Amino acid sequence: MNSFGRIFRVTIFGESHGESVGVNIDGCPAGLPLTVDDFMTDIERRKGGMQKGTTPRKEDDIPIFKTGVFNNKTTGAPITILFDNKNTRSGDYEKQRAVPRPGHADFVAHQKFGGFEDFRGGGHFSGRLTVCLVAAGVIAKKLLALQQSEVKATIMEIGGEADLDKGLQKAIDAKDTIGGIVECRVNGLPIGLGEPFFDSVESVLGHAVFAIPAVRGIEFGTGFAAARMFGSHHNDAIEDNTGKTRTNHAGGVVGGITNSNELVFRIAIKPTSSTPKEQVTLNWETGEQETFSVKGRHDLCIALRVPVVLEAVTAFVMADLYMLQQHIKRII
Amino acid sequence: MNSFGRIFRVTIFGESHGESVGVNIDGCPAGLPLTVDDFMTDIERRKGGMQKGTTPRKEDDIPIFKTGVFNNKTTGAPITILFDNKNTRSGDYEKQRAVPRPGHADFVAHQKFGGFEDFRGGGHFSGRLTVCLVAAGVIAKKLLALQQSEVKATIMEIGGEADLDKGLQKAIDAKDTIGGIVECRVNGLPIGLGEPFFDSVESVLGHAVFAIPAVRGIEFGTGFAAARMFGSHHNDAIEDNTGKTRTNHAGGVVGGITNSNELVFRIAIKPTSSTPKEQVTLNWETGEQETFSVKGRHDLCIALRVPVVLEAVTAFVMADLYMLQQHIKRII
Amino acid sequence: MNSFGRIFRVTIFGESHGESVGVNIDGCPAGLPLTVDDFMTDIERRKGGMQKGTTPRKEDDIPIFKTGVFNNKTTGAPITILFDNKNTRSGDYEKQRAVPRPGHADFVAHQKFGGFEDFRGGGHFSGRLTVCLVAAGVIAKKLLALQQSEVKATIMEIGGEADLDKGLQKAIDAKDTIGGIVECRVNGLPIGLGEPFFDSVESVLGHAVFAIPAVRGIEFGTGFAAARMFGSHHNDAIEDNTGKTRTNHAGGVVGGITNSNELVFRIAIKPTSSTPKEQVTLNWETGEQETFSVKGRHDLCIALRVPVVLEAVTAFVMADLYMLQQHIKRII
Amino acid sequence: MNSFGRIFRVTIFGESHGESVGVNIDGCPAGLPLTVDDFMTDIERRKGGMQKGTTPRKEDDIPIFKTGVFNNKTTGAPITILFDNKNTRSGDYEKQRAVPRPGHADFVAHQKFGGFEDFRGGGHFSGRLTVCLVAAGVIAKKLLALQQSEVKATIMEIGGEADLDKGLQKAIDAKDTIGGIVECRVNGLPIGLGEPFFDSVESVLGHAVFAIPAVRGIEFGTGFAAARMFGSHHNDAIEDNTGKTRTNHAGGVVGGITNSNELVFRIAIKPTSSTPKEQVTLNWETGEQETFSVKGRHDLCIALRVPVVLEAVTAFVMADLYMLQQHIKRII
Repeated sequence: MNSFGRIFRVTIFGESHGESVGVNIDGCPAGLPLTVDDFMTDIERRKGGMQKGTTPRKEDDIPIFKTGVFNNKTTGAPITILFDNKNTRSGDYEKQRAVPRPGHADFVAHQKFGGFEDFRGGGHFSGRLTVCLVAAGVIAKKLLALQQSEVKATIMEIGGEADLDKGLQKAIDAKDTIGGIVECRVNGLPIGLGEPFFDSVESVLGHAVFAIPAVRGIEFGTGFAAARMFGSHHNDAIEDNTGKTRTNHAGGVVGGITNSNELVFRIAIKPTSSTPKEQVTLNWETGEQETFSVKGRHDLCIALRVPVVLEAVTAFVMADLYMLQQHIKRII
Repeated sequence: MNSFGRIFRVTIFGESHGESVGVNIDGCPAGLPLTVDDFMTDIERRKGGMQKGTTPRKEDDIPIFKTGVFNNKTTGAPITILFDNKNTRSGDYEKQRAVPRPGHADFVAHQKFGGFEDFRGGGHFSGRLTVCLVAAGVIAKKLLALQQSEVKATIMEIGGEADLDKGLQKAIDAKDTIGGIVECRVNGLPIGLGEPFFDSVESVLGHAVFAIPAVRGIEFGTGFAAARMFGSHHNDAIEDNTGKTRTNHAGGVVGGITNSNELVFRIAIKPTSSTPKEQVTLNWETGEQETFSVKGRHDLCIALRVPVVLEAVTAFVMADLYMLQQHIKRII
Repeated sequence: MNSFGRIFRVTIFGESHGESVGVNIDGCPAGLPLTVDDFMTDIERRKGGMQKGTTPRKEDDIPIFKTGVFNNKTTGAPITILFDNKNTRSGDYEKQRAVPRPGHADFVAHQKFGGFEDFRGGGHFSGRLTVCLVAAGVIAKKLLALQQSEVKATIMEIGGEADLDKGLQKAIDAKDTIGGIVECRVNGLPIGLGEPFFDSVESVLGHAVFAIPAVRGIEFGTGFAAARMFGSHHNDAIEDNTGKTRTNHAGGVVGGITNSNELVFRIAIKPTSSTPKEQVTLNWETGEQETFSVKGRHDLCIALRVPVVLEAVTAFVMADLYMLQQHIKRII
Repeated sequence: MNSFGRIFRVTIFGESHGESVGVNIDGCPAGLPLTVDDFMTDIERRKGGMQKGTTPRKEDDIPIFKTGVFNNKTTGAPITILFDNKNTRSGDYEKQRAVPRPGHADFVAHQKFGGFEDFRGGGHFSGRLTVCLVAAGVIAKKLLALQQSEVKATIMEIGGEADLDKGLQKAIDAKDTIGGIVECRVNGLPIGLGEPFFDSVESVLGHAVFAIPAVRGIEFGTGFAAARMFGSHHNDAIEDNTGKTRTNHAGGVVGGITNSNELVFRIAIKPTSSTPKEQVTLNWETGEQETFSVKGRHDLCIALRVPVVLEAVTAFVMADLYMLQQHIKRII
């Protein structure tokens, strides 16, 4: 399913080299001010344009409101936003088709969809669709802001280096691509978001975050390091009736429920699959392996573009949990 | 929601010190042989009885089939299985109520449910409910076995030590508790399970796995280490038309879809929250902090009990993806 | 799926001649007082004990709270309630198995579940499971009462007669069974419940109401009669800003949304399938038709038991819409 | 929610006087041939252009494929189809805003969405969105055709007259609008579609069908007439092992499951709300009632346009049940 969320429900669609990609949001409250300008900062951030290590695909990504917005405000009806695809020369893809790019979904998509998939530039599996996630995130962030809650993601390391330039230089020197780690923090959350077990905060965030291409892991609070800690060190002492804890090893979630402390988690991003380095892959027509190398410019490090996408996904997950939570106290 | 799965749908319920805990499974195919004996091995494994570092709560956990099984076979109707709770002396909990145990859900549950939660032994948040997950897993494993697919989880390290005894000894020496890392592998999977974006294999597994108490992180294939790799090293070269790759850094999932290689992922388990060490926590009646220490026996390392629970959750997630996949090819 | 509801989610399970039937309710707010006594009136009504034309199966149906209730209040965790089955002699069913009862699900169940279905007394398809619906309804009615909203269903006609005794006498005279029509009214609803299109009030009520066995039709307001009306007669003139209309041909729903007037709808109940009259059916072993007659006592008119079931289903649907609605206004 | 379906999932969006309306279909199998021509017959039928009593809004409704179709075949990715709105002069709506049209959703929408709704021509509540349902139906019908199953809806009566001209003449003579009854039949269905209780065939069809504007009732087989029948007359005698019955009072569904006989149901359509007759309604600014009359041309009888919409909704519901059913037998 290409949808997520129980109340604030996000559906994405489109292909890299089709006419457009888009997003539908059902369940957004009415009356939220919304203009094209609200989107431009995050859309620019996604392009990573200024940064060494990213390749701006000059899309001039302008959100086209198709439904659900009237007089610059949400109406309560489903919101549909499209982004046109440009610069979509697809000539080479047909030729290269039987040679699936290593690390990409080309091979599995071909098998899963019986050869009917749109294979140009990764088709529906393309990172292009993250612009749709970003758009949903812009709306969700505005809802969270009404609750004094803010989401912020930052890159922690590139290629193992906290000094990002150093990490990128590694890739440049090696004529290769490199991965990275991104951290996300959400402040201003109340106690009580999330549900035990299958709708725990970690569960729903984990679900949505792995929808971001190239994510290979997620950890909350101290995360994997917790596996090496003693219980007396890991437990966070509650300091007062607001739920504030002295430390925040739990990353703001206990028993799957927010505890009023900052929500903190990190994700691992694999190196860009399209590397300048020559590689070996299959030719499924011949059934033999052959060498393969990527033409054109590609991102040295896809992680550089991820923060705004991670913020977006986190924002719409938390907005959904917020809306879900409202009902519980209200009826009694 | 206490339910998971689109076709093979698992719902869990119950409290640590209530009369029973249980599980309902809707969407299980008819005709699957099922007897109490099928469950006993995994239920025993969950107790971790023989192992240093676990505290067997002698429950004699016998699955009680209430619905959906007839003549020792599934009927296609919803299956309900209960486990009675025994040894549920709850005298102390009332007294200690205003003093939430550090690392447990006591405080957030109290806030979220307005004081109406069953607070005895963690109530609905208790690890006791993992026996329900294990039961669902037993059924799912039998379905996967029909597809020649098998799930196997093992402990990789305790307290940072691959030698588990050494890891446990650390905790014993420190009079504290300790965490660990568990790895899960699934073989025999076909190409094509999972969907792009929100129903990627990582998404649905991530969702369900974070429903297991004490999980702090999950990573697929090389996981967090991928963030420090070069693209040319991380990409797995496809060797032949079966999809077999030379390496398996992706852990069997590309673009969110299984690629026929072994599915591999790891989870981080935090140290048991109930540590023998004295700790500080809040007394919410006084609004002051006070010292707290756990009475009675508790697990040194909850990770020791996790493998069978992780197998179970993985099995029912993969069974659901299997069943979901069936429809796609069939109609054309 | 044996579940219904987006927030207040009801799952039913069990078989007529199994050990028990039951219901799980996930999403019920915490703190609602709940005791066995709350259920007894509606459970008694379902038996239709006093009425000519119903056959009380003396079950002494006592709700057994398994989970989610603590100190006589809901906890916010999933509520599980069981009802034991008694008087479940199933000796004859095996013998009669290849001869599906006309009007019952025996034949389709056998085909659908490949012969693995529990065939005793209709198994999972039995009207016995309506006691689970009634139990969910009791809880939902208490939630609605907190909103000053009340559900009331009454029988409008039996066998075409508004004088019910007369209708039943028809069946008695004919040594046959007879159908009826039941009307349901909900007062105290606010403007705005329900969503356009797929979650319209009529959609979700229609969905849930057809889960009641023997329902053959549903109509809102003037219903089928509207097909013969002129527009100027059918339209209800709004009288004031509360939304009150002079007439209520719409039955309280316009555009799928409640309009503050009384919600009114009717359902058609077919005659009890198990009639004393001799009938013809298939013997699937011989492949030939043979005569069939029902042994034992059965309801002359199943419609007599329906009002309390219809109230229950209506109550949990409306409670769900109520809870769903809460979120929409709150976040802005 | 503006979505329906568990596997073949239809989402609709848009407003009457916005830029476009559209539909997203997730879960459609890959490889289904699909061109604009496939849609034109049903889109024309929806306009009811030739018929007395309908007012063709000359839209030249051309489906615009945005995503999910490649080389004239479905790809397995979500399909998005838009229809541009033309002739959308909306000048008068602002002026008339405080005077909700009788029988329309204007008043409830205003209350529900706090005044932020797009009120022009009914906005998101407009019958304009049925073109989206029709588009989804075209695809679903093609899937059903692969299973030798066909859906066909016809008008049974207009204003109580089987002679449709006579019925329309009533409305013309009265200078008013009139309702009607539409019947739908599906042949070629196998035994076993649908699930007991909440996913019964009647439940899911009832749910989806009430999403069609102006529907006031639905009945299966003999429907409301069943309430006046004897059991021995209503029961359908099974004739042979294929499940064929001598009569079809059940309308092809027993116990919520298809029984291989023709699926038959009828819906009641209210008279068009926009009648030429002068009416009384509220002015919510003055709080007083005032007279109201519809400007411009409107349908005498909206029921005339309904058959193709009903076919569409029925088709996508049945396609979903088909796809859901596939999984059940396959895994064993």
